[in-house]
Amino acid sequence: MRHLMSPLDFSVEELNQMMDLACDIEKNPKKYSHACDGKKIATLFYEPSTRTRLSFETAMLNLGGSVIGFSSAASSSVSKGESVADTIRVISCFADICAMRHPKEGAPLVAAANSSIPVINAGDGGHQHPTQTLTDLMTIHSLKHRFDGLTIGLCGDLKFGRTVHSLISALVRYTGVKFVLISPEELKIPDYIRDDVLRANHVEFQEVIKLEDALPKLDILYMTRVQKERFFNEEDYLRMKDFYILDTEKMKLAKDNMYILHPLPRVNEIAVEVDKDPRAAYFKQVQYGVYIRMALILTLLEVKVC
Amino acid sequence: MRHLMSPLDFSVEELNQMMDLACDIEKNPKKYSHACDGKKIATLFYEPSTRTRLSFETAMLNLGGSVIGFSSAASSSVSKGESVADTIRVISCFADICAMRHPKEGAPLVAAANSSIPVINAGDGGHQHPTQTLTDLMTIHSLKHRFDGLTIGLCGDLKFGRTVHSLISALVRYTGVKFVLISPEELKIPDYIRDDVLRANHVEFQEVIKLEDALPKLDILYMTRVQKERFFNEEDYLRMKDFYILDTEKMKLAKDNMYILHPLPRVNEIAVEVDKDPRAAYFKQVQYGVYIRMALILTLLEVKVC
Amino acid sequence: MRHLMSPLDFSVEELNQMMDLACDIEKNPKKYSHACDGKKIATLFYEPSTRTRLSFETAMLNLGGSVIGFSSAASSSVSKGESVADTIRVISCFADICAMRHPKEGAPLVAAANSSIPVINAGDGGHQHPTQTLTDLMTIHSLKHRFDGLTIGLCGDLKFGRTVHSLISALVRYTGVKFVLISPEELKIPDYIRDDVLRANHVEFQEVIKLEDALPKLDILYMTRVQKERFFNEEDYLRMKDFYILDTEKMKLAKDNMYILHPLPRVNEIAVEVDKDPRAAYFKQVQYGVYIRMALILTLLEVKVC
Repeated sequence: MRHLMSPLDFSVEELNQMMDLACDIEKNPKKYSHACDGKKIATLFYEPSTRTRLSFETAMLNLGGSVIGFSSAASSSVSKGESVADTIRVISCFADICAMRHPKEGAPLVAAANSSIPVINAGDGGHQHPTQTLTDLMTIHSLKHRFDGLTIGLCGDLKFGRTVHSLISALVRYTGVKFVLISPEELKIPDYIRDDVLRANHVEFQEVIKLEDALPKLDILYMTRVQKERFFNEEDYLRMKDFYILDTEKMKLAKDNMYILHPLPRVNEIAVEVDKDPRAAYFKQVQYGVYIRMALILTLLEVKVC
Repeated sequence: MRHLMSPLDFSVEELNQMMDLACDIEKNPKKYSHACDGKKIATLFYEPSTRTRLSFETAMLNLGGSVIGFSSAASSSVSKGESVADTIRVISCFADICAMRHPKEGAPLVAAANSSIPVINAGDGGHQHPTQTLTDLMTIHSLKHRFDGLTIGLCGDLKFGRTVHSLISALVRYTGVKFVLISPEELKIPDYIRDDVLRANHVEFQEVIKLEDALPKLDILYMTRVQKERFFNEEDYLRMKDFYILDTEKMKLAKDNMYILHPLPRVNEIAVEVDKDPRAAYFKQVQYGVYIRMALILTLLEVKVC
Repeated sequence: MRHLMSPLDFSVEELNQMMDLACDIEKNPKKYSHACDGKKIATLFYEPSTRTRLSFETAMLNLGGSVIGFSSAASSSVSKGESVADTIRVISCFADICAMRHPKEGAPLVAAANSSIPVINAGDGGHQHPTQTLTDLMTIHSLKHRFDGLTIGLCGDLKFGRTVHSLISALVRYTGVKFVLISPEELKIPDYIRDDVLRANHVEFQEVIKLEDALPKLDILYMTRVQKERFFNEEDYLRMKDFYILDTEKMKLAKDNMYILHPLPRVNEIAVEVDKDPRAAYFKQVQYGVYIRMALILTLLEVKVC
C-alpha cells in the first residue's frame, strides 16, 4: 500500500503515468464515472482549507465514490485528546482512502504509519502540500506538453512560499528546465534550495528583482503573493510592491504563449483585468487539480479502468 | 445560462411551468430519481441556515446527484481574503450548479456575473430569498389549485419581513388576488410596497390591526413572527402581542378550507395546539419546498425528463 | 414505526436477529450495497462526536444511501430558538431516518414523539448512547459466539461511565453472564446498578480494586478511562492510577482468548504497546459498530434483503 506524503514520493516515470491518466480522465470523464463506485474518501481537515477539501471531494464524487469527514477541528471531536494514530485506525474502518490536512508538520506521516488505508497529505503546516505540486506539474504539462527546455519564472515570496520550494524540487527532476527567480532582496529563495536543489542538480537559474525584467523570456510565470509583513520596512514595501503586481501593461512584455499560474487564493498580485487574457491559466489550474486528484485516487487505490 | 437572483426573475408562465413540474415530481418521484446522476450542487453557506441548506441538498440527492460545500464561514476558508468572484470561478470547476447564502446583499449577483454554472440566491442579507417565495407560491398553488380570487392574509411584522414583501410582489402578477395586511401600527407594510406594488397594480387590499378581524374572510393566512424589539415601548408590546398569536380559539373564526403558512422557524406566534388542525400547512410547506427546488434545479440545468 | 432510544428497547430475541443480520452483512457486504438506494439518513449532531457521526454515515453509505445533516450546533441554525419537535418535523420532509446527538437528556425522545421517520438516539448528555451498547454486544458476540458463561471485567470509572451502566443492563438479560467490577473505591458502580440491576437479576459479580487481581479469570475486559479529577485527593490518584493502566506486563496474566474492548477514545489507560497483541479488539470494535448500525438502519426502515 502506498501513501502520498511528499511531492517526491513518486518517481518521474510514475508521475508521467499519473499525468497521462489525468489527461485521459479529462478527455473521457464518463469512462471513469463509476471507477470508485461503493468506495469512500475521508477528508480529515484539522484546519479549514475549502478549496483543497472540495477538490478532493469533487475528485471522489466524479469517480462514483462518496465522502465522509470533517472540515475543521471545531466541528470535530476527533482531535480532543485522541492521537492521530488512533484516529486513523478508526477512520480505516470507515473509508477506503483518506486526505488529511493538519496544522502540525508530520501529522500525516504519523497517520500513514498507523493506517490500513492510503493516506494523502493534503497540507501539514508550512511543510508539504504535495497535491498542489502535482496540480502545478499537471497544468504545465497540459499547457506546454513538455517540461524540457521551458523557462519558468517564479515570482513573489520565494523565501517562505512552500508551493514554490516544492515545485522547484519537483521540476529539477526533468531535463532542460530553466528558472528565473523574481523577488525582493528580503524574500529571495533560501540557500538550501539554491545550493542543494538548483546548483546540486546543475540547473540553470537567474535571480532578478523586477518582474518586467523577467517577463519577456518566460514560458510559464508562477505568481505568488507578497505579504506586506515580510518586508523590513514600510518604505521598501511601498517602493517595491508594484514590481510584483501583474497587470495588462506588464503582460505586453510576455510571450504570446506564456501561461500564468497561481496556487490561489490571490489577493491583488494579479489584477482582475488580466483574467480575460487567454494566457491566464490559474482557474484552468483548479480544473487540472481535480483531474490529477482523480488520477491519484485511482493510483493509490490500484483501480484500473479499461 | 440562467441564474435565480430574485423571485421575479421568472415570468408567470415560466413559474407555472416550474410548479407543474414540481407537481409531477410530487406524484412520480421515481421518474426523477436519476435525472441528475453524476451532477453536483455546491452549497456555499457563508452564514448558517440549516433548513434552507438541507432542502437544497435533499432536492439534489432526490434527483440522484450529490453535494459538496460548506455550512458556515467558520468551517470554511474561502471567505479569507478571496473575492466572491474568484470563489465562484473555483467552484465552477467542481460543481454543476450552486446555491449561495451570504450575509452581504448582492453577493450572489456578483457570483452569477462571474460564474460558468447556474447560481441560486439562497438568501443575501435582508434582501432576497427567492426559493422561499417559490416555496410559498408552490404551497398555495398545491393547496388551492389557483391564485385567482384568493384572499390572502399576511400577519405579523410586515415592515421588516423580507419574505412577506417578496410574496406580495410575486402574487400581484396573478389576477384577482386580494390581500389583508395584519400588523401593529409600528410594523405596517412599507410605502414602497403599498404604493409601488399594490396600488400601482390596482390590487385590492385592506390593513387591519387584529388577526380576529381578518380571519373569517381569508383563504390563506401567512404568519410571521413579531419580535418584541420592534415595538416602540414595552406597554404597546404587552397590549398587542396576543393579537398576533394564532391559537385554536382564533382558528374557530377561520374558514374550513383556509390554510396556514409560515416560513419557519416559528417561536410562539402559532400555538403548538394548532399543529393538529388539518388547516395547518406549515410543515407541508417544507415538503413543497423540496419539490420546487427539485424543479428549479432541473430547470436551471436544462435537464428534461420524459 | 420504531425508534431506538435506549439499549433495552429491543428484546433479546430482536437483538439476536439484528446481530445475525450484522454478521451476514460482515460476510456478504455486496449483498447489502444497494439495500438503501435512494434513502437518506439525517445526522443531527447538536454537539460534535466525529466517531459516532462518521460511523452512522459510513453505515448508510455502505447500504447505498446518502447523508444530510450537521456536525455541530455552531455550524447549524436549527437550534436557534426552534424546538426539537419542530426541527424533527422539518427533517422528516428531507430524510428517511435520523440519528440525533444532543447535549440535553431526553431531546431524542421529544424528537421521536414528533417524528414521522425513525429516530436513533446517538447520545443524549450523560444519559443513553444505545448504539455504543449495541456495538459492545455485537463485538462480544462476534468474538465469543455466545454470552452464556462469560466472565466480563469492567475496569475504570464505573461510577460515572454511561457505557458501562448500559452494557451491564443489556448483558444481565442473557443467562450465565458473570461480572468482575474493577475500580477504585471512589469510582465503584452506583447502588442502583448493584442492587436494582445485578442483585435483582441474581447475577454473579465481584468487586475488586486492582486490575491484576481480576485479569486471570476474565473472558472479556472492557476498559474505560479513569479521570484524575474523579479522585478525592492527589495522593490517592498517584497511588492507584497504575492499577488501571493495561500494559503488556499485565496482559501476561490474562487468558490467551481474553479480548480487550474500549469505547474509545483512549487516553493512556491502554498502553500503545498492547495494540499489537492479538487480544486487543478495540479497533475491531469500531468495525463491528459499522455492521451493527447497518443492521439497525435496515431493521428500523424495515428493509428486507434476500
